[in-house]
Amino acid sequence: MQRITITPSQIQDRQISLTVEQHHYLTRVIRLHSGSQFQAIDGTGQLYLAEITAGNAQILQISSTIDREFSQPITLICALPKGNNFDDLVRACTELGVTSIFPAISDRTLLNPSPQKLLRWRKIAQEATEQSERIVCPIIAEPQPLKTIFSQMTDCNSKYLCHSRGDRPHLLTCLQSRQLANSPITIAIGPEGGWTDAEIEMAIEYKFQLVSLGRHILRTITAPIVALSIVTATIEGV
Amino acid sequence: MQRITITPSQIQDRQISLTVEQHHYLTRVIRLHSGSQFQAIDGTGQLYLAEITAGNAQILQISSTIDREFSQPITLICALPKGNNFDDLVRACTELGVTSIFPAISDRTLLNPSPQKLLRWRKIAQEATEQSERIVCPIIAEPQPLKTIFSQMTDCNSKYLCHSRGDRPHLLTCLQSRQLANSPITIAIGPEGGWTDAEIEMAIEYKFQLVSLGRHILRTITAPIVALSIVTATIEGV
Repeated sequence: MQRITITPSQIQDRQISLTVEQHHYLTRVIRLHSGSQFQAIDGTGQLYLAEITAGNAQILQISSTIDREFSQPITLICALPKGNNFDDLVRACTELGVTSIFPAISDRTLLNPSPQKLLRWRKIAQEATEQSERIVCPIIAEPQPLKTIFSQMTDCNSKYLCHSRGDRPHLLTCLQSRQLANSPITIAIGPEGGWTDAEIEMAIEYKFQLVSLGRHILRTITAPIVALSIVTATIEGV
Repeated sequence: MQRITITPSQIQDRQISLTVEQHHYLTRVIRLHSGSQFQAIDGTGQLYLAEITAGNAQILQISSTIDREFSQPITLICALPKGNNFDDLVRACTELGVTSIFPAISDRTLLNPSPQKLLRWRKIAQEATEQSERIVCPIIAEPQPLKTIFSQMTDCNSKYLCHSRGDRPHLLTCLQSRQLANSPITIAIGPEGGWTDAEIEMAIEYKFQLVSLGRHILRTITAPIVALSIVTATIEGV
């Protein structure tokens, strides 16, 4: 069944007040008729079964299935890569169940992206949420300096900074041996060229553990997908 | 240091007989002068340190470091996705250390790709081998029907067919509990829409174990990266 994303404020008296774009999409693009049913998610975990009515939509059923969502938040801090690769990264990480993505301006980040980019990433996250039938859309934060992001992560006790150089324990080993298996997880992935020494020192100050993703050299676009695959497998595969 | 891929037949008497394209690339594109050094890999595990000479290249040192390669072969069988996504998949899986990729024509595969596509995938695998500093270039087989591919996998004892429907054990669980931790691993990933019942029955006949990659709905392009991330983490992270 077709699924769209709405905001909680669009709901009043068991009616969904569709935007012009949503109404156009449902009735013109996918050609639903009056009386046809569709699903709507509000990004907070609610799933609505609704029916097209004249100009609007009537809610038939509300459920809050969270089958595809993990109980613990998974946060990805990712140094902004060159080019448009962040689009693919947002899409794949949304599929994999990430809760929030913090694009980081690091010492080796070349460009500070435009506000249009942020809007684009949020749109991609929303699309990927719908396509992968998740009901919680990940938060894509504004790009911020690494230190600002680290200072917001003080509540999390399982924080890992992926760092390819040196002899670090593998992320899988660390995750499988941690004490609180259900607590939030934060993963930080560096830019092309890796983290600078100053960034690594700062991460250690903020109680990040340095980990490896294995012996291979991964692109900045591949590494977050690999890290999240390991995180989700650890949560589900035990 | 710059690294190029050569064929073993280009080597004679400690000289590398560069092709016109390679010579152009080294001397014109990246502007190495006579006497400059570069690395060459021959796709079989040999790494050559060489020096540009007039019109050719002199081998200075031969090593066979296999640091980035796993001791056991990792085979990916992947139903061909729609569009050009197979390019990205070949690139990411090469980075992750795959040994061979078998593009499969499955019941739900729409197109049989042209021979040009195969050449393109092999070129991408070669580029990704160089960029990720691997020394063994993965084999990209010709697209073949699934049954033909399965019949070539009888030597492998750890074969997993990823299948999102039903209550299957997680790939991570199966890999971590298998008896022969150093034996070859084969992973099969289905097309958009999943495997047909007939394909699943055939996989079971060929002794594939049905496994899950978790509760999320992954695109055909994301699933192989997730599966290989779990495979490589299991090999390295224990």
